[in-house]
Amino acid sequence: MNADYKKYKLKMQKLADVNYSSAVLQWDQEIYMPPKSAEKRAQQLATLAGISHELAVNNELGDLIKKLHKNNNLSVSEKRNIKLSRKDYRNRKKYSTDFVEKLSRATSEGFNHWQLARKENNFEIFAPSLKKIVSLKQKESELLGYKNHPYDALLDQFEPGAKTKEIDELFTGVKPQLIALIKAISKKPKPADKFLHLHYDKQKQWDFGIELLKQMHYDFDAGRQDVSAHPFTTSFSAKDVRVTTRINEKNLSEMVWSCIHEGGHALYEQGLNDDDYGIPTGEAISLGIHESQSRLWENNVGRGKAYWKKNYPLLQKYFPENLSATGLDDFYKAINRVQPSLIRTSADELTYHSHIMIRFELEKQLLEGSLEVKDLPAVWNSKYKEYLNIDVPNDSQGVLQDVHWSHGGMGYFPTYSLGSFYAAQFFASAKKDAPGLEAKIEKGDMLPLLEWLRDKIHRHGKLYSASELCQKITGEKLNFSYFMDYATIKYKEIYEL
Amino acid sequence: MNADYKKYKLKMQKLADVNYSSAVLQWDQEIYMPPKSAEKRAQQLATLAGISHELAVNNELGDLIKKLHKNNNLSVSEKRNIKLSRKDYRNRKKYSTDFVEKLSRATSEGFNHWQLARKENNFEIFAPSLKKIVSLKQKESELLGYKNHPYDALLDQFEPGAKTKEIDELFTGVKPQLIALIKAISKKPKPADKFLHLHYDKQKQWDFGIELLKQMHYDFDAGRQDVSAHPFTTSFSAKDVRVTTRINEKNLSEMVWSCIHEGGHALYEQGLNDDDYGIPTGEAISLGIHESQSRLWENNVGRGKAYWKKNYPLLQKYFPENLSATGLDDFYKAINRVQPSLIRTSADELTYHSHIMIRFELEKQLLEGSLEVKDLPAVWNSKYKEYLNIDVPNDSQGVLQDVHWSHGGMGYFPTYSLGSFYAAQFFASAKKDAPGLEAKIEKGDMLPLLEWLRDKIHRHGKLYSASELCQKITGEKLNFSYFMDYATIKYKEIYEL
Repeated sequence: MNADYKKYKLKMQKLADVNYSSAVLQWDQEIYMPPKSAEKRAQQLATLAGISHELAVNNELGDLIKKLHKNNNLSVSEKRNIKLSRKDYRNRKKYSTDFVEKLSRATSEGFNHWQLARKENNFEIFAPSLKKIVSLKQKESELLGYKNHPYDALLDQFEPGAKTKEIDELFTGVKPQLIALIKAISKKPKPADKFLHLHYDKQKQWDFGIELLKQMHYDFDAGRQDVSAHPFTTSFSAKDVRVTTRINEKNLSEMVWSCIHEGGHALYEQGLNDDDYGIPTGEAISLGIHESQSRLWENNVGRGKAYWKKNYPLLQKYFPENLSATGLDDFYKAINRVQPSLIRTSADELTYHSHIMIRFELEKQLLEGSLEVKDLPAVWNSKYKEYLNIDVPNDSQGVLQDVHWSHGGMGYFPTYSLGSFYAAQFFASAKKDAPGLEAKIEKGDMLPLLEWLRDKIHRHGKLYSASELCQKITGEKLNFSYFMDYATIKYKEIYEL
Repeated sequence: MNADYKKYKLKMQKLADVNYSSAVLQWDQEIYMPPKSAEKRAQQLATLAGISHELAVNNELGDLIKKLHKNNNLSVSEKRNIKLSRKDYRNRKKYSTDFVEKLSRATSEGFNHWQLARKENNFEIFAPSLKKIVSLKQKESELLGYKNHPYDALLDQFEPGAKTKEIDELFTGVKPQLIALIKAISKKPKPADKFLHLHYDKQKQWDFGIELLKQMHYDFDAGRQDVSAHPFTTSFSAKDVRVTTRINEKNLSEMVWSCIHEGGHALYEQGLNDDDYGIPTGEAISLGIHESQSRLWENNVGRGKAYWKKNYPLLQKYFPENLSATGLDDFYKAINRVQPSLIRTSADELTYHSHIMIRFELEKQLLEGSLEVKDLPAVWNSKYKEYLNIDVPNDSQGVLQDVHWSHGGMGYFPTYSLGSFYAAQFFASAKKDAPGLEAKIEKGDMLPLLEWLRDKIHRHGKLYSASELCQKITGEKLNFSYFMDYATIKYKEIYEL
């Protein structure tokens, strides 16, 4: 290996060490940290963010990247790493340490205020933090620069190469087809699903979730599961990828599909090349591709009939008192019940995208300044009426429902929809490449699918861009008709359309 | 506040942020981290250690300290902070970043090898790591410098101002008196304690331990308890002080006195001045004083009859099947049974000091090079025969029994004995200053004792040195006869000597 490249890699790994250390502190913050620790933890995270920033814009690193960028003797993967690190470096240079620390402090505080606001159903508690966060995100767009819309600058951080305009077009294309399907479904009687809302013992749910994760080949020697308010996956290297779940004793679905969903994310991270720790080829491509992994497992696999052929009898053994009277067909219909709901995380896979479109519109407006934070709850509620025809009973279940904005997470909601669309397209290719895949899933054998994902996606890290990868493994660009075809066939059968 | 002092404080706080971040990673490593994460975690901790070192020897910080050291307008506490930071700064300057990272890597690896070696009862697995650690500690003594013995250099880091020669003298003084007492006891019949080794349900033990911690006024909003192989207390600020315990279903004592012991440490940390986060007056004085807090609660309080007047009936309610036939007097005698044992952490408060003397001698020999790592198990075993008249059945229960050396922790074992001696002296003063203290303890009211400790010790941080503090609150220097008097009176009664 080139001596400069070695030095570059070492510097990138030190940077990763600091970032993953922050991730450990954040993981702890959301799971185990006692409440009085909040203020000092925010300060500790701000300090680490500042140090991370200094390492990321370090001049020696910049010089190495510059030099390596001109070097023609690098391998394809080395070239790719330098290209991406160069872009990152230039972007990071646009931030001051002061800005980074401010944002870290604002979001650490924001998280704590959001938690309290949600608990007390009082948006006012969170509003000042959110206002601060929005204004910092606006500043960030300006720092990074953009051509058409401030949203572009943020989106590119999560979905490199994607444009706001493309997302607008994608949603414009998919919306009428999706609405038509949902409308057709809404005229049919809804499958009974009361049995999913009986009492489901916490510990038994936990044990069943662990079984599902093991069946997916999630490696518990390189990860662990904990409980948190909002399920998430975090990673401190490919050898330490942790998931969380949420258990509701009155709703079996929350645990089941959050386990499978986060498990999908985690398999991607555990499948990354550990030797490339800290450099782009050791990291996930984009949030959209990340989400394609979680949603492929959650929906295309985990809400499919094949998956439950093996697993429903197992679930019945855990909860005979609730499920012995219900057959597989009725279970399958119930878990695919389409019904507008208040929160994205428990939405069915069709109305789900309405939640995303709402957020996308709100964030665009917040960023361009056409919507003020104080007006957010009212606008949120009116959009839910418009898109989903439901009334939001309170802000805890509305605008305060989830964690993302409190983390400063803006500009990536569309990647959730991209993820679904990629998932359908990838799953179609996997089935073509590996005939008998679904028969294996019916037997609880997830290995052929995992091996396909590992081979085609996981192990490459950022070697390809999202669109290159899609082209390479499916033979065409992202095409939402795979998703529409999958959904149409599935729901036509379930709802006898 | 002086502008330079403000800058100094800010820099010290950033340094603390990094050190406390490392502490979070270490806490996680010992409690929750999955096994495959070990290698990368070692690397992450090494990187943080390197960054911490760079911040600690930062020239701007050095210049500020230099300038402030000459400033005559500082308050007493400000002067004290500058004086101690100056000493630290000069000491830290003696370390290279390379050395610090090497030591961090060696001890992270060492911890993992020690865990495996202990599990497999195979010293060979740990020996290479330990050899590396010993040689790094020898190098550290040389770097720091010393007059008489390499041990002095390490000891001063944990017990500022203390000398190896003083410890030698202290042990020489206390040893014959202690041995005489233990010998007299050994001639008497041992109190029955089989009932402490019946089956004690894990969860119930846990619940009882939590009750004890709450009764001590350990603040669970500023801390939490977890389970680990070796109980410890760690702190990420005065508002986040965590304890761990170990639960053995066949030995009630392990949980009970580790809870009280770590609780004592934690109360000290929770009682530190949070405004002085990161500077000496916000930090504990020394390990000896820290240990005085844990041992005061563990022994002077937690093995006293007054403590169990209230708590034994409570314990009986948790475990009626094991304890209803045993009265308070017999319980009190059983928990104060004196018997040579293999491991310090479950030793009685008299033979305890033999364990310390053994370690002190072994570490001195390892450091001066008169003992090689490969010979350690044999020498360990022969010393246990000599001092405690017991045969060590295997290395897991012998030389591999605890975590300290794997962490690079050498030079502080004597502080455990200092802690016991300080504890007896402090407790005698507390009883004099607050008459009726024991009557309150009998009722489960620990507040008067805690308030005395907070007022006299906790809130000052490092404002006084250990010996200044001892003089100030007890009217004399450390005097081991308080310990001997306490022990003699107590055990004369129990054993009818």
